[in-house]
Amino acid sequence: MIRFTTMHTTYQLRVRYGETDQMGVVYYGNYALYLEEARTDLIRKSGISYKEMEDKGVMLPVVESNIKYHKSAGYDEQITMKTSIKGRPSRTIVFYTEMFNEKGEQLNTCSVKLLFVDKNTGKIVRCPDYVMEAVEQFVKKSND
Amino acid sequence: MIRFTTMHTTYQLRVRYGETDQMGVVYYGNYALYLEEARTDLIRKSGISYKEMEDKGVMLPVVESNIKYHKSAGYDEQITMKTSIKGRPSRTIVFYTEMFNEKGEQLNTCSVKLLFVDKNTGKIVRCPDYVMEAVEQFVKKSND
Amino acid sequence: MIRFTTMHTTYQLRVRYGETDQMGVVYYGNYALYLEEARTDLIRKSGISYKEMEDKGVMLPVVESNIKYHKSAGYDEQITMKTSIKGRPSRTIVFYTEMFNEKGEQLNTCSVKLLFVDKNTGKIVRCPDYVMEAVEQFVKKSND
Amino acid sequence: MIRFTTMHTTYQLRVRYGETDQMGVVYYGNYALYLEEARTDLIRKSGISYKEMEDKGVMLPVVESNIKYHKSAGYDEQITMKTSIKGRPSRTIVFYTEMFNEKGEQLNTCSVKLLFVDKNTGKIVRCPDYVMEAVEQFVKKSND
Repeated sequence: MIRFTTMHTTYQLRVRYGETDQMGVVYYGNYALYLEEARTDLIRKSGISYKEMEDKGVMLPVVESNIKYHKSAGYDEQITMKTSIKGRPSRTIVFYTEMFNEKGEQLNTCSVKLLFVDKNTGKIVRCPDYVMEAVEQFVKKSND
Repeated sequence: MIRFTTMHTTYQLRVRYGETDQMGVVYYGNYALYLEEARTDLIRKSGISYKEMEDKGVMLPVVESNIKYHKSAGYDEQITMKTSIKGRPSRTIVFYTEMFNEKGEQLNTCSVKLLFVDKNTGKIVRCPDYVMEAVEQFVKKSND
Repeated sequence: MIRFTTMHTTYQLRVRYGETDQMGVVYYGNYALYLEEARTDLIRKSGISYKEMEDKGVMLPVVESNIKYHKSAGYDEQITMKTSIKGRPSRTIVFYTEMFNEKGEQLNTCSVKLLFVDKNTGKIVRCPDYVMEAVEQFVKKSND
Repeated sequence: MIRFTTMHTTYQLRVRYGETDQMGVVYYGNYALYLEEARTDLIRKSGISYKEMEDKGVMLPVVESNIKYHKSAGYDEQITMKTSIKGRPSRTIVFYTEMFNEKGEQLNTCSVKLLFVDKNTGKIVRCPDYVMEAVEQFVKKSND
């Protein structure tokens, strides 16, 4: 049996000036863009492109986001994001991300739930088989 | 005794083109900006300006945000936000917002927790008295 | 003969916290969103909705933007935008906007050129007649 | 004599979903963030950190931006930016950037002029010597 909990990917980015606000740190709303990058990266590392998935007719709107902000990040800081999937995707898929600064201090704890939706009908669908298989293979390989 | 739960303010805005994404709806991260407008408006209606509060030395970083997205909003749609404060502010203040489209359909359910921080020392402080009083007066007046 | 140069619309908005950067003023890239609001407003005042125009099959990508920044704007400041169209729209339409702060000081001088494109074919088209007429009527009325 | 015109740096990034709009391409205002990344990268490659420069008391607000958009870029596309400095920096510095998609097609032609300002006094200053030297060395090295 595959445990979805143990795998995580690591992705890094650097804070843009325009992503800070006058408090001198990243605006709380801009982490959504970082989280998007982190999950796109996880999907890409599974051998799938989110873009292709959407081109094939399945889109993934966000239905829930929860962020606990522990520490702020400043301009030009490099942020390391560790992202995992917990549970087996069905109609929804949940990504868990923790961000860290260059000192290894944890910045936040985030979860984002997305829904599989047929692009043409607008109806909720199950996670496509090829996505499920790719993610499972990736998790399996990561656990070896 | 003042019940903080019953008051809510109403604030409206219109979706900008640049706030949509290629799914044709508001990007999930951009609601953070709308929520910011809604709580600034509530504070302003209490007779306080968030800007002045910050100028006086207290800033309010976001320490937690939770959003459940029920329905998407499109370009040029007018969004109505109902915002309330539940519980008495102490070191933190929590704003609850529900957004609705022009048909009255609920778009999402949001809560944002902010922390009172001394701008100079960076230390956590209690909600300043003049803020507490203003909010209490506003709640009281709204409940009459 | 209609002079397109003399008409201008006035539109106001308030700077969001998330639109500032750590310099304590509006990030230079965020004025694009303000300019978008100003021209959408001008179009709406002509009796047309940009949304409807796009729904009817014509979209208006930006092909050129030029901004001279004279003075910065801070959080919570109210910005007044004066927008005009110079010249008769054909395949392109050019909007000129000047922004002012609450003291009446000019913040910037902006021009944005947009192209009329058929949404389905992707081909460049001329400004639709109903848009041309609406704009002309609006200009005429404004000049009376 | 150093010719500033011949040097250029190359920087790549990938388009985020949240940076597209409902036209299915990058929102015109979001290129400002890409341009910021490109010039920060050029400065970093000269051996200077923009962050340090600001910490030392000189900030660089944008005073002019001009963009000609030739072709749009879509979600997940990799954009290559070629950035150069033309002319010797004095009170201002001008960055020229051209962006290209993965097929090598040119997306736009951009120039951004920034002003050297003393962070404490708010007064215009000349480009600091250590910045001038670093940039000159970098240009020289690039031309060899």
